[in-house]
Amino acid sequence: MENMKYNLGSGALENWLVAETVFNADFLGKCEAIFCQGNGYLGIRHSLEESYVGETRNTFVTGTFNKFSAEEVTELPNFPDVTAMDIYIDGDRFSLEKGEIKEYERVLNLLNGEVLRKVVWVSPKGKEIKFLFRRFVSFANEHILGSAVEILPVNDGISIRILSGINKRVSNSGSQHFEDGSSRIYEGKYIESIQETTESKVKTAVFTAHNIDSEQGTEVKAHPIIKRRGVYYQYDFSIGKENAVHIEKISGIYTTRDLKYRDISENEAREVIKEESKADFIAEAKKGYKLLFEKSEAVWREFWNKNDITINSEDGFDQLGIRFAQYHLNIMIKRDDNRLGIGAKALSGEGYKGHSFWDTEIFLFPYYMYTDPKAARTLLEYRYHNLYGARKKAAENGFSGAQYPWESAWIDDGEVTPLMGDADVVTGEAMPILTGLIEIHISADVAFAVDEYYRFTGDTDFMEKNGYEIIFETAKFWLSKMEKNEKSGKYEILDVIGPDEYKEHIDNNAYTNYMAHHNMKLAKEYIADIKESRTALYEQLDLKLNLKQLEEELCLKMEELYLPQPDENGIIPQFDGYFKLKDLDLSKYKQSSIVGTIYRDFNMEQINEYKVSKQGDIVVLFFLLRELFDKETVRKNFLYYEEKTLHDSSLSKCTHGIMASELGLEEMAYKFYKGSASVDLGTEMRSSDMGIHSASMGGVWQSVVMGFAGVRLFGNSLSVSPRLPKEWSLISFNMVWRGQPLGITIDKEKASIKNNGEESAELMFEGLPVRISGGEKVDITLPGKPA
Amino acid sequence: MENMKYNLGSGALENWLVAETVFNADFLGKCEAIFCQGNGYLGIRHSLEESYVGETRNTFVTGTFNKFSAEEVTELPNFPDVTAMDIYIDGDRFSLEKGEIKEYERVLNLLNGEVLRKVVWVSPKGKEIKFLFRRFVSFANEHILGSAVEILPVNDGISIRILSGINKRVSNSGSQHFEDGSSRIYEGKYIESIQETTESKVKTAVFTAHNIDSEQGTEVKAHPIIKRRGVYYQYDFSIGKENAVHIEKISGIYTTRDLKYRDISENEAREVIKEESKADFIAEAKKGYKLLFEKSEAVWREFWNKNDITINSEDGFDQLGIRFAQYHLNIMIKRDDNRLGIGAKALSGEGYKGHSFWDTEIFLFPYYMYTDPKAARTLLEYRYHNLYGARKKAAENGFSGAQYPWESAWIDDGEVTPLMGDADVVTGEAMPILTGLIEIHISADVAFAVDEYYRFTGDTDFMEKNGYEIIFETAKFWLSKMEKNEKSGKYEILDVIGPDEYKEHIDNNAYTNYMAHHNMKLAKEYIADIKESRTALYEQLDLKLNLKQLEEELCLKMEELYLPQPDENGIIPQFDGYFKLKDLDLSKYKQSSIVGTIYRDFNMEQINEYKVSKQGDIVVLFFLLRELFDKETVRKNFLYYEEKTLHDSSLSKCTHGIMASELGLEEMAYKFYKGSASVDLGTEMRSSDMGIHSASMGGVWQSVVMGFAGVRLFGNSLSVSPRLPKEWSLISFNMVWRGQPLGITIDKEKASIKNNGEESAELMFEGLPVRISGGEKVDITLPGKPA
Repeated sequence: MENMKYNLGSGALENWLVAETVFNADFLGKCEAIFCQGNGYLGIRHSLEESYVGETRNTFVTGTFNKFSAEEVTELPNFPDVTAMDIYIDGDRFSLEKGEIKEYERVLNLLNGEVLRKVVWVSPKGKEIKFLFRRFVSFANEHILGSAVEILPVNDGISIRILSGINKRVSNSGSQHFEDGSSRIYEGKYIESIQETTESKVKTAVFTAHNIDSEQGTEVKAHPIIKRRGVYYQYDFSIGKENAVHIEKISGIYTTRDLKYRDISENEAREVIKEESKADFIAEAKKGYKLLFEKSEAVWREFWNKNDITINSEDGFDQLGIRFAQYHLNIMIKRDDNRLGIGAKALSGEGYKGHSFWDTEIFLFPYYMYTDPKAARTLLEYRYHNLYGARKKAAENGFSGAQYPWESAWIDDGEVTPLMGDADVVTGEAMPILTGLIEIHISADVAFAVDEYYRFTGDTDFMEKNGYEIIFETAKFWLSKMEKNEKSGKYEILDVIGPDEYKEHIDNNAYTNYMAHHNMKLAKEYIADIKESRTALYEQLDLKLNLKQLEEELCLKMEELYLPQPDENGIIPQFDGYFKLKDLDLSKYKQSSIVGTIYRDFNMEQINEYKVSKQGDIVVLFFLLRELFDKETVRKNFLYYEEKTLHDSSLSKCTHGIMASELGLEEMAYKFYKGSASVDLGTEMRSSDMGIHSASMGGVWQSVVMGFAGVRLFGNSLSVSPRLPKEWSLISFNMVWRGQPLGITIDKEKASIKNNGEESAELMFEGLPVRISGGEKVDITLPGKPA
Repeated sequence: MENMKYNLGSGALENWLVAETVFNADFLGKCEAIFCQGNGYLGIRHSLEESYVGETRNTFVTGTFNKFSAEEVTELPNFPDVTAMDIYIDGDRFSLEKGEIKEYERVLNLLNGEVLRKVVWVSPKGKEIKFLFRRFVSFANEHILGSAVEILPVNDGISIRILSGINKRVSNSGSQHFEDGSSRIYEGKYIESIQETTESKVKTAVFTAHNIDSEQGTEVKAHPIIKRRGVYYQYDFSIGKENAVHIEKISGIYTTRDLKYRDISENEAREVIKEESKADFIAEAKKGYKLLFEKSEAVWREFWNKNDITINSEDGFDQLGIRFAQYHLNIMIKRDDNRLGIGAKALSGEGYKGHSFWDTEIFLFPYYMYTDPKAARTLLEYRYHNLYGARKKAAENGFSGAQYPWESAWIDDGEVTPLMGDADVVTGEAMPILTGLIEIHISADVAFAVDEYYRFTGDTDFMEKNGYEIIFETAKFWLSKMEKNEKSGKYEILDVIGPDEYKEHIDNNAYTNYMAHHNMKLAKEYIADIKESRTALYEQLDLKLNLKQLEEELCLKMEELYLPQPDENGIIPQFDGYFKLKDLDLSKYKQSSIVGTIYRDFNMEQINEYKVSKQGDIVVLFFLLRELFDKETVRKNFLYYEEKTLHDSSLSKCTHGIMASELGLEEMAYKFYKGSASVDLGTEMRSSDMGIHSASMGGVWQSVVMGFAGVRLFGNSLSVSPRLPKEWSLISFNMVWRGQPLGITIDKEKASIKNNGEESAELMFEGLPVRISGGEKVDITLPGKPA
């Protein structure tokens, strides 16, 4: 039985709808996460109005990190819930586990961000009732969300009780981040909850208000309830057969971390937030669901007008997949706030605690860089703020410069990786999490993204204010981290974890060493560059960062860093001693649709002994530093490592797919695209329980634009080399290259590139330079096709 | 539809069983609370193995108070849950809201403390399955509880998945009191969770272990799961038709607040608890459910042998009611630990946060004093420890001596009454809770109990070590609290709340003034007494408490305290101005089975203006200080105030019943007994949601022994004046009077009193002295009956 449906819409809605057509309370997490609604500020899982055992109600506000206690790391706290609404029909609590479901359909409309749920339900007492639930999170006012419920008794009158309000008895898997605070009700209507996070002292204001009207004008009895960690209204009324009642619930969420309070003192913000937010909320609430929703819908329309990617495929799922990814890519970022990263689960679940990883730079960043360079810049500015924590971490570990935290939260939190994880299947003990200690490649990943952004946008302002400093400080870290092997005379990077997290405590991980080398090389080149061309800047940075000494050290040591080379078979060892590992029959795990099943049979120590990868370490290296390796080396290594990779990271298939595409392994590339798009959207019902895989959304986009359309940055050039899978007849998308908005359409025969900007754009098409003037469109016949 | 059944048992089990015969997920709180199991150390609500929306899983360990934050008051924290067990049948989560219930019965056996639940359920896939669930909390080892589940497929084989372990994602209505701590598993079987409370730093160890065996010897796959705030095993196996599988789960709970660690330092306790508790638990777990249960059952048998009260009534419910009360009276007290009070909900719910009120002294204390004087003494010793907080509170409020906290928790916590309560129906704001500030009669109530205990037991050792000090210090408080009315020249006690909490900010509350006067009178008399007869003690206490000055002040001021007198109609005003209040038609509220319904129509300010009482203030006064008032005054006032009383306190009906009994209002007395016994046990399904009403259990016992049997302490005499209701043919019970165990049986004709002690006992029977030698039994014909 398939619970999910992907081909529900038709006409203008074709491939815009994701539907759950079978209700199963065992799989609540799936649609809670993938139907998550938000606007970059708010992220709210689509938990149902009625409650179920096993549900995970989450409402997150970006950046509001709090620490439960000294023993835990900071995390994005779960806000009070306003999505629940207990509905009693003739005394029976409405629940789809009771009575009979005659019709069921829950649909996320990617076009406007609204979720609709239609249910025809027969209550245990035999009353047939039609429900229509709607919900949206506003893109017009980021603080606002709205719910609407229509209840229509089909065969008989019913009495209805609604219990709805603000529930503060929520937590992050048991860790409570808020004081109870105060609760009150204004004007017999507007419910208010003022709270504060326990440690970070972020003050929050949550409001909600209801409107109930029925066609018959039924009298509604309203009874206020304020209790511990909860404030509600209980409404009682009756409606007759075929008379619909409409219940609206408009809510608003505000905090002192809001951007508007950025430039005033925390105390000042705490003083004004209550009145300001109340006024804003009441004004909005008075508009009602329809008007508020239309305003939000208009913003979504604008987004899609600019960003929709057309994929004409034999399988509509391919089109839906990229739209689904872009939906989430749009709601996971607060584009105007450079104090914020993007969490590994964005704002869709408690997984990874709202922390940012290397995923942002390597898997998400390109999307924003290609489509909204200003937003991309704020992400790098976040890392600039992060230098505080990175310098602290480096110093604490005895290194120089900036060692980026493996997990980052608020800008001055520093390293926030937790120390303990799941149970070891062999010993029964919780396993330590080593990534915060020894997965160090992130510093080079950030530097890589800075340089990539500069090459892509030419944004010297950013480089001068933030970019150079990041590259220089991370380079310093690597210089201090490298250790000289007295035997070989080479520098080595020892005891690390690479992107393939199935291997711990390894030496000279190819990915890490090459990326570190690249980081130092960038530093060396940029120092030379600005010393030559921008003397004032050089002197200013030298004063702050001691560039002279850095340059000296780079000249002395950088080229002595050991970079693993291909062996006699052309294979680069993933790390020292890789070839001595034992072989393992992976078919069982490769076939599993559940990630991490290998942990059920082996513990970390044991996995360490086998040639098995979570994601292809070296494949990512090829993708990022493509120019360093010849095609034959890439092909050989790709095939060698792909075989040993379980793709147990959601970031694995996209990169493998892009590389497969480049290598002409078309079928494999297409399979990986589908795999990538299915990480969350697919029919596997458990994989998204803790939240969607945000970086994977970037991976889906990369597969399409950087993979099949083959639009990649090589050096300072934008290179286009399309490789559409045979199932696709056309793709079309927009991007911004060096300030010029480009519209690119690729079909089986040709590529059309329209420069929607005012200045000319230059790019390389299949290795040949193309220049397109502002406003001009060029058609280019694909190689091997009739002109 | 009645969900509860009271006449299920027959033969030896007649009137020993309380049964829930209809499952309704809307009323989970009822049996969770009234079927609560415990042993004075542990209290565990009887939440079901499978989870439901709206359940409240609570596991409390007496005395482990913790404060979530500075904004909240300390409370008994909810411990990790070991009672839940997710059961999946062929992939369907077992839940009585799904599939079909063919048979259902959940029975608390008061005789042995075990709860049995028999369910015949047809799964959504059509498989019929018999379940038998059993659970007990051990009275043989207070740390241990056991569950057992038998699953028998009736018509077809089934696959079963069990997910069971320790769930730490629990809280007190959202407030989390524990660190996640550590989780691990020993020997592939014993699950351990070590935690600490966040503020009070109580270290806790919780263990659980499973045993699964089936008649077929099915192979069971076990998979350990350690996650955030949770450690579990997942078991997968299959069983054939008509083959039962038996699953046992033995759990153990230990803390550094345990009595055994009382005399070592906290640090030392924290060091040893882990190993000691693990060893104890593993040894116990190996014994298995049957053996462990039998040991506990033996302790229960001993309890009932000593304490069972026989009531031969036309309605078996009357017999069940007193047994039910004694069941809870037995599990709510840790008889050997004088650092602990008894919470208003005992250990059966979050209500009142585990705090002790005046309820203990006035409603619970007599039960223990009559049946187990040693345990009664520990309760008063707790108040002696409480002097610390009482002196602190007095000083903070600008008074002398000891002002007992309205709510008490751990011995050095002081006043712990929260400041805010439910919503005001008129303003929508949370209402302030004033009891901690102005409900001050508790200090006199404690002193009353001390004196009562001394008169009842003659325990001079207690008085010398603790009792006198309590009486003297509380007397000092009253002297400093009284204010002179310059007009009348009398002292007054202004701005208080009496036991009738429907009236706030009142002056000269009769109950408070009389009890305060009594408190001071006791002090004066005891000072005179020990000065005369125990000079060394007097000097020692004088040195510590300045008795000379106290005596002087008492002589000067005590008799000047204004004590409200009957008006021309013989009615004593409950407080100044009572007769000027407005009348209100109370029939609507008197008929409601739900308490507090008046709050739905009026707020506190409004209720203050009417002649309406939550409980009869003056009726309690008559009951406690009976000798001060003549019978006619008592009768007139009782009738006057009863009419105006809503009995919205669970402590109301018992006292009214005893007074009705004394006044010969037999029918009313019997009605009040039934009302009292029904507070928790009855068919009202919502009243016990936050926990059982512990003091009401004492009230039920008081109604029987002090009311119908008429066994009361007047002065230094034990007075017996039976008044059996016409529906009762016999009552029989044991008690201890001045060290001599008495067995008393009363039927329609006569009373038989057996002195099971060695020394003679003296008492007053219907006003005439009776002396019974050790070992002797006397039969006394009731007045008006043929000799």
